[in-house]
Amino acid sequence: MDDRLTHFDASGNAVMVDVSEKAVTTRIAEARGSIQVNQAVYDAISNGTAKKGDVLGVARIAGIMGAKKTSDLIPMCHSLMISKCTVDFTMHPETLSIEACCIVKVSGQTGVEMEALTGVNLALLTIYDMCKAMDKGMEITNVRLIEKQGGKSGHYKREEA
Amino acid sequence: MDDRLTHFDASGNAVMVDVSEKAVTTRIAEARGSIQVNQAVYDAISNGTAKKGDVLGVARIAGIMGAKKTSDLIPMCHSLMISKCTVDFTMHPETLSIEACCIVKVSGQTGVEMEALTGVNLALLTIYDMCKAMDKGMEITNVRLIEKQGGKSGHYKREEA
Amino acid sequence: MDDRLTHFDASGNAVMVDVSEKAVTTRIAEARGSIQVNQAVYDAISNGTAKKGDVLGVARIAGIMGAKKTSDLIPMCHSLMISKCTVDFTMHPETLSIEACCIVKVSGQTGVEMEALTGVNLALLTIYDMCKAMDKGMEITNVRLIEKQGGKSGHYKREEA
Amino acid sequence: MDDRLTHFDASGNAVMVDVSEKAVTTRIAEARGSIQVNQAVYDAISNGTAKKGDVLGVARIAGIMGAKKTSDLIPMCHSLMISKCTVDFTMHPETLSIEACCIVKVSGQTGVEMEALTGVNLALLTIYDMCKAMDKGMEITNVRLIEKQGGKSGHYKREEA
Amino acid sequence: MDDRLTHFDASGNAVMVDVSEKAVTTRIAEARGSIQVNQAVYDAISNGTAKKGDVLGVARIAGIMGAKKTSDLIPMCHSLMISKCTVDFTMHPETLSIEACCIVKVSGQTGVEMEALTGVNLALLTIYDMCKAMDKGMEITNVRLIEKQGGKSGHYKREEA
Amino acid sequence: MDDRLTHFDASGNAVMVDVSEKAVTTRIAEARGSIQVNQAVYDAISNGTAKKGDVLGVARIAGIMGAKKTSDLIPMCHSLMISKCTVDFTMHPETLSIEACCIVKVSGQTGVEMEALTGVNLALLTIYDMCKAMDKGMEITNVRLIEKQGGKSGHYKREEA
Repeated sequence: MDDRLTHFDASGNAVMVDVSEKAVTTRIAEARGSIQVNQAVYDAISNGTAKKGDVLGVARIAGIMGAKKTSDLIPMCHSLMISKCTVDFTMHPETLSIEACCIVKVSGQTGVEMEALTGVNLALLTIYDMCKAMDKGMEITNVRLIEKQGGKSGHYKREEA
Repeated sequence: MDDRLTHFDASGNAVMVDVSEKAVTTRIAEARGSIQVNQAVYDAISNGTAKKGDVLGVARIAGIMGAKKTSDLIPMCHSLMISKCTVDFTMHPETLSIEACCIVKVSGQTGVEMEALTGVNLALLTIYDMCKAMDKGMEITNVRLIEKQGGKSGHYKREEA
Repeated sequence: MDDRLTHFDASGNAVMVDVSEKAVTTRIAEARGSIQVNQAVYDAISNGTAKKGDVLGVARIAGIMGAKKTSDLIPMCHSLMISKCTVDFTMHPETLSIEACCIVKVSGQTGVEMEALTGVNLALLTIYDMCKAMDKGMEITNVRLIEKQGGKSGHYKREEA
Repeated sequence: MDDRLTHFDASGNAVMVDVSEKAVTTRIAEARGSIQVNQAVYDAISNGTAKKGDVLGVARIAGIMGAKKTSDLIPMCHSLMISKCTVDFTMHPETLSIEACCIVKVSGQTGVEMEALTGVNLALLTIYDMCKAMDKGMEITNVRLIEKQGGKSGHYKREEA
Repeated sequence: MDDRLTHFDASGNAVMVDVSEKAVTTRIAEARGSIQVNQAVYDAISNGTAKKGDVLGVARIAGIMGAKKTSDLIPMCHSLMISKCTVDFTMHPETLSIEACCIVKVSGQTGVEMEALTGVNLALLTIYDMCKAMDKGMEITNVRLIEKQGGKSGHYKREEA
Repeated sequence: MDDRLTHFDASGNAVMVDVSEKAVTTRIAEARGSIQVNQAVYDAISNGTAKKGDVLGVARIAGIMGAKKTSDLIPMCHSLMISKCTVDFTMHPETLSIEACCIVKVSGQTGVEMEALTGVNLALLTIYDMCKAMDKGMEITNVRLIEKQGGKSGHYKREEA
């Protein structure tokens, strides 16, 4: 862990940091997050995957396309050519929440945490958009990095209770 | 509230819904969300607003630019010409969290909830990006619509405990 | 019909034409086009709509998102806030082809032919992309404007045999 | 040739496939397609290349810029840094059609068929846009992959009658 | 003229200002700027407009497409649906410079100065790109607003010597 | 130096040139340019860096984000994954001008002059945007390449008086 903000120079100016000396390695990141919905939305999404409207199918695509756009959205992010991206969902009926999981892989000089987190966020925002006529109270929550491999900082695995 | 998914037609196909019959009115939406950080990040952000690196200044711009890109990111969202967008932050030292608030205004045929939510999400993701060298365990949470005015569905104000 | 190229000035320079004097009216355009595939792809798409991989679901989203990006892709196209966009598919087993139909609606000063045609093209290109491991010989064909309503030039309906 | 849809996982979910194990090789793709026009448009384009309005010059740029945007348009396409892109046109007076040919080259882990096809499509759509005041009946047709080199699947050359 | 920075709120935070109370009027802006080149580039551009490579034709398209992207590039700019955009060039043999002029028109609540200036800049940058193999010393200069009509601040005409 | 326009083929058609045979080397470019302002704007920017509105902080981000978008803006530019980008400003009270300096680094097959120049231009345009309510007469000037390292053409250093 660094003990300072690496995205600013000594004068406090934002910079896109120099990664040219970093090794090209395979880097993988997994992020997760959830959206809390009401019963009606939960049922519509559960039932909808087959024929009535595939909310999660649309959200998955938004997540994957969003992960590809990360460097266009996050000011100091480097452009990357990601070699793999998946977005998957787990339904949690007991808490009326849908969890999104985005895994991104790259062979490059910088990690893909931001791509995975952006993929999760955009997938969840798309669920909100497609269901907001039924429930305006939905809430996106617990968006976090689960695991990260590759690069100098090595393996990171979030400890969860 | 609708009792069905409005973004799919009778066959279950995703559609960008027809808003051409909706009235052009002034519409405002406010969304909020937070990022939970560790003490080191909290201090760096608190101290940094002046000279050492203005994390929130960068995040604000990312939020505003992101709100403008919403229809490019959320598949079924209509393009809008938003007439105002602000992103503000509140520091919560007791919980080590930073809250982002995005307010968007438009004169148009469809609401700006998604723009406000997207603005919040991208501002928080940018904080994550700029501080991730110090703390990989940050978590984006409680992203939600606070208030919405204008349009047929009228005034919505989230009830919070 | 004009008898000259309206997108160039008297000196032959490309221009984005002035539409400021045109009336704001409701304008609708419908475009269609097809992709010719082999039997294996045809079967995979037919069977896939439910569970094995919804090629047409992905292509539909690409078409709708593409229609929204038209002015970013076609140099002299005006930006528009389209009020509706749908992309639908018809399977033609006798010819092993899938037909895409894109309908776009706007209230504005210029038509949406290009948006509808772009939506069709990107939907068909996405089918190509998702099936190209099974058939490289697919062919996009018969992309054309079917109907156009609104605006000074009035109603256009393609005559088809 | 694969006998299944590679862009979906075992559960039928769309994925951006993992190309990280594929070799970095030089890959080239050539795609072609045509637009069928009426006599007036044909003459305007033929005469226009010099002084009266260079339709094909504008279409060429749209094709090249479009090829660069492919991964932004086709949901499951990987971002690529293409090392070369050309778009050329052949006039066919006997059939009143203009043929576009797009050749794309990359040194990378995945092919550039989609880039070449997207380049052709956007070039042809731009011709449509610039000439639509003269002829609404134009038709984009025969968009197909002509040749593909590099990568595990080897050399592909379309057999044409 | 305002005597303060209108793009910041009372706390100094950047905002996308509220234009919702401004009148929808026709607004026009004209910007100009030049690129200083060496004799070889000047000759290549002068001769090239016909057959050998139309540098200015490419630059014109880049300028028009760039003007449409302004709100995506300038953080606090509002999205606009511009109704007209032209980019023209004047050759100045005596000073070996090429002047670009961009005129943008809109019916809206905010002006189009930034669109016109962005159009000029991107046209000139494109000239630089296409000629940089011949001359790395080119210089973009005198990019300025020439005239502005419409809106509360009224008519502005730059006084030039 | 080349003695011809390399971005056109033998027939005069614009091409995105083939860089696949060029070596992958570290390439760095530095560009600079200035904006001439009036006294009121100069003072507002000088005073504003701390608390009243950080014009240069916003402009810096626009410059960095703009440099990343270069290949989307300049028609024949190759996409690049830049490994570093900084934008800095120098205040010149004696001439009432602010100078922007953009340095871009890449490990790739083609140089980053255009990225550095685009970064400078977009930073300066953003200053114009944020201060235009106070001064419409600002002028962007002297945008030029200062230095370039790496690649076959070797080291270039602009000679300035």
